[in-house]
Amino acid sequence: MLSEKLRKIYAETGAEALFLETDFLRRYLTDFYSTDGYVVVTEEECVLFADPRYFEAAARKFSESDIRVEAGALPEALDFVKPYHVLGIPYPFTAVSSLRRYEEEGHETRDCMPALRAAMLVKSEEELSRIARACEIAEDAFLALLPELKEGMTESEAAALLEYHMRRLGASGVSFETICAFGENGSMPHYETGARKLSFGDPVLIDFGCKYEGYCSDITRTFLFGDDGGHEDFKLLHAKVLYAHELVKECLVAGMTGKRADSIAREYFRGKGLAEYFTHSLGHGVGLQIHESPTLSPRSQDILTEGMVFSDEPGLYFEGKMGIRIEDTVTIKDGRVVSFMKKTDRRCIIL
Amino acid sequence: MLSEKLRKIYAETGAEALFLETDFLRRYLTDFYSTDGYVVVTEEECVLFADPRYFEAAARKFSESDIRVEAGALPEALDFVKPYHVLGIPYPFTAVSSLRRYEEEGHETRDCMPALRAAMLVKSEEELSRIARACEIAEDAFLALLPELKEGMTESEAAALLEYHMRRLGASGVSFETICAFGENGSMPHYETGARKLSFGDPVLIDFGCKYEGYCSDITRTFLFGDDGGHEDFKLLHAKVLYAHELVKECLVAGMTGKRADSIAREYFRGKGLAEYFTHSLGHGVGLQIHESPTLSPRSQDILTEGMVFSDEPGLYFEGKMGIRIEDTVTIKDGRVVSFMKKTDRRCIIL
Repeated sequence: MLSEKLRKIYAETGAEALFLETDFLRRYLTDFYSTDGYVVVTEEECVLFADPRYFEAAARKFSESDIRVEAGALPEALDFVKPYHVLGIPYPFTAVSSLRRYEEEGHETRDCMPALRAAMLVKSEEELSRIARACEIAEDAFLALLPELKEGMTESEAAALLEYHMRRLGASGVSFETICAFGENGSMPHYETGARKLSFGDPVLIDFGCKYEGYCSDITRTFLFGDDGGHEDFKLLHAKVLYAHELVKECLVAGMTGKRADSIAREYFRGKGLAEYFTHSLGHGVGLQIHESPTLSPRSQDILTEGMVFSDEPGLYFEGKMGIRIEDTVTIKDGRVVSFMKKTDRRCIIL
Repeated sequence: MLSEKLRKIYAETGAEALFLETDFLRRYLTDFYSTDGYVVVTEEECVLFADPRYFEAAARKFSESDIRVEAGALPEALDFVKPYHVLGIPYPFTAVSSLRRYEEEGHETRDCMPALRAAMLVKSEEELSRIARACEIAEDAFLALLPELKEGMTESEAAALLEYHMRRLGASGVSFETICAFGENGSMPHYETGARKLSFGDPVLIDFGCKYEGYCSDITRTFLFGDDGGHEDFKLLHAKVLYAHELVKECLVAGMTGKRADSIAREYFRGKGLAEYFTHSLGHGVGLQIHESPTLSPRSQDILTEGMVFSDEPGLYFEGKMGIRIEDTVTIKDGRVVSFMKKTDRRCIIL
């Protein structure tokens, strides 16, 4: 017996069997985590092929479930799907070498990712609560970090402390490599955290997140490590980024396109003559992946609806000088934006 | 002008241009880290397409290099390769959806992964020194963790501390999700670290590693948290796993197949009537990926040669009771195995 969720994805794909080898998609379908494994969904059932490393854990988890666990890996899974001619596989998450293998076995394939993406786009209550917990852990970790920041500490040390707090608070790991940029390093939106040491008066940009039961959080805060009196421009620009960030929360409503949402921040910056310094998109979906649907960008036709989760992250970057980004992970509830971030200050705090 | 390494991969693939979108392969070819981007290699040059988030950092890094940086993403990269009919793409690391896109643009494709894998299999001095550093960081972090382990601490807390030390010591992150298993949880080779609390007399199995400048380390240690007198079986079995682990280091020589290497440990266990409890392969290659070539398993025909890096990780697992694994990351130098692990005890230490 398939669950409602699986039945819908199966039916929409229109294949005889779904065949999945990607870790986060296996997790989405079965809620079981493993680095390797295969999930097959037929009209009748969902079967998880687990190798010896995972078999005991999987058999224990699914002993009273609709999901059947079989010992095995690729050969066993391929053998099982032999009778099913048309396989549904997720094209964006299936390797060309796997495709060739299925073709050699005589299968035709169809992309099941549109059906999966549609299902994954709107989060269940359980998913929302995991994302909320991932966000809460990230915020608590940030609050634990602030009093530990010291002059002379490197970006890597600060990132290490932050990640330690997230792990200590129950995260399974980071949702992406922590970006911790001191001083002018903030001007590179995806700066690789390094050995730069913290000095009095430095702007600090930290973009980070963690995973909780598979689900991601994503948050950025920018602030000053002490006020040396030389950052009046920074403070004014910070206020503008914050204004754009809050404006999105105010004005974005269910039914808008990603393009329209992006334009809320972009048009505000344009009015201030700053549009050219907002060098990336407003946001991206957040879930089992740190970047997923929907997209909030100047070209996105995605419709933003109830239960979707995405980032609101306007930023301004001045090459070699400074960068400011303020980001929350948010959802749409009762038609309006609700942030998962409830504990940390978005303003330009001065430590 | 192409470097020697790029020229060789280009020539062996026999395509008109190589087109790469996978992060660790971009890093291998250019030594530049970014979460997104495209690398194109033609007979004449290597071009990195970097989007606005990375452009400044890339342009700075490659200002005096053979590698040319272009602002752009997929459209710009596709435009650039239009004149090249046959593209070399890495089949195991290219998504079917990307393949379809290249085909729509009129390209034929050829798998460049065999050439890449052959190049990546044998590590350069620079690569070996990065792996050595990743291993040293992992060992130093483990030594820092040991005195911090306390009764009542959860597996997640212990993993968090260990990961903090790795980050603090210069790792960019973990090379895979840390496995920290207390008591009988060690019997699941890929246990998901959880909330089990540490008690006096518990066996502890920790399988972990970190990344340093892109390169991975992988190490497992199994020991006792205090001796409650009830673990005589555990100690005897631990000694056998250690014997198998050291036997591999003694007997594995350059030129052996992965199958022959695996059999060193497996035949020893068979002689002791324990073969059925060694439920996984002896080892896997370690490099930019935590699992790569060569494979040391009962079916592997890979030939192990000078400069390759792989794990030596025999283990014994008794369902629901206990598990023991001892793992080093090692290389072959002057025909013999040399371990990167030089600081931590492999024996059954008792804390």
